[in-house]
Parts: sequence; structure tokens; C-alpha cells
Amino acid sequence: MKSRPLEMSMLFDFYGEMLTEKQKEFFDLYYNEDLSLSEISENAGITRQGVRDAIVRAENILRDMEDRLSLVRRYGRVAQGLLKISDSVSHISLINDGRYRNEDIASEIKAISLILSDIIK
Amino acid sequence: MKSRPLEMSMLFDFYGEMLTEKQKEFFDLYYNEDLSLSEISENAGITRQGVRDAIVRAENILRDMEDRLSLVRRYGRVAQGLLKISDSVSHISLINDGRYRNEDIASEIKAISLILSDIIK
Repeated sequence: MKSRPLEMSMLFDFYGEMLTEKQKEFFDLYYNEDLSLSEISENAGITRQGVRDAIVRAENILRDMEDRLSLVRRYGRVAQGLLKISDSVSHISLINDGRYRNEDIASEIKAISLILSDIIK
Repeated sequence: MKSRPLEMSMLFDFYGEMLTEKQKEFFDLYYNEDLSLSEISENAGITRQGVRDAIVRAENILRDMEDRLSLVRRYGRVAQGLLKISDSVSHISLINDGRYRNEDIASEIKAISLILSDIIK
């Protein structure tokens, strides 16, 4: 039943603190520590079904929050923009070392400015 | 009773979709449209105290979410970093126009790289 572990980890990073202590604990063991439902169930001394219910409930809460707030999606856009800026900066650095012309720096700067206005809007 | 309108608008932008339709409506009229409790009460046909209760409840939900998730605070740090990057880019642009030396470009690039690693971490 494990659904998209990476997506779940991101949702947990953003919204995890809205879960109960028990939901957080099971969710973390299952998705971040990669324990099985049976292992969590044995350690916690409750039924496998109980663990499963808590995790499914947690998944639903996290998904519902992202459906409403879209903060993970918005952060993804920012992170992508920052990586592009980082690339542009490396490129300017090479240009500045004398291997390219100043017009190329101007064009890189224009690219960064566009990314910035796209992120900030 | 209006508490820090700017802070409330930010919290509403991030977490507003977790409120009920009624809470959203009253909160928006009060904080974004700057209507008084009495005005909202008259328009909605419910008591002033009813409007006030809904808004206080909404404020508490939004504050509680920020206490747990800190997403507004984290976004503020990103936004500050982006403004600094934007300044640095303008500066590089001036330098590139020939008014400064290439060593200055190198130093600006270093500044941007530091800001990026600070935002991304």
C-alpha cells in the first residue's frame, strides 16, 4: 500500500506537525525509516490494522492540506527557480574568468532577473 | 481588537483555505477589506458578537497553524534572500556596464552563492 514515498516525505516535512503524536510516529517509521506495518505493530504493541489505520488517516490529512494550501507545489517552483539561478551564477563566474564576452554576462543577468520575477510573483 | 493586520493577511494567504467558508468571508472583509464588525454583522444578518466569534476563532486557527508549521516565517527568509539576490544582480549589471572591475563581479557572485546556500539549506 505504500504510496509514493518521496511525495509523502515532502508532505510530512511541510504539514507533519498538524498530525497527532501517534500519527507522526507511525508515519515517520513507515515512510522515513522504512519499517513494515508488522514491525511497527510489534514495537508499538498494537494491531497491524491499528497502525495501518493511523497511517492512512495521516496520509489523508496531509493530502487534504496540500489540496487546499498547495504549499509543497509552490515551494517546488521556488526550489526549481533557485537551482536555475545557481546555474546562471556559475555561468557568470566562468564568463567573468575571461572565457566569454560581457554580452554573455548581460544575457545571464537577464535570465536571473526573469527567474526572480517568476518566483516572487 | 484588530490584531496586526499585515501579519493576519500573511497568515490568511498561507492557511486561509483551512477555514470554513463563513470564517474566510468574515476574516477577509475584516482584515483585507477593512470593514467594521458592525458593518459585516449588518450585511450578513447575524449579531456583531457572532461575527466577532468567527473572526477570533479564525485568528486562533491561523496562529496555531503557524506555531506548528512556521511556513510564513520560512517563506519570509526566502523572500529576504531573493531581494538580496535581486540587489546583487543589479550591482553585477552596473559592473558589467564597465563602471567597475571584474573582481567586483566575482565578489558579488560569491555573495549570491552564499545567499542561495542559506535559502536552500
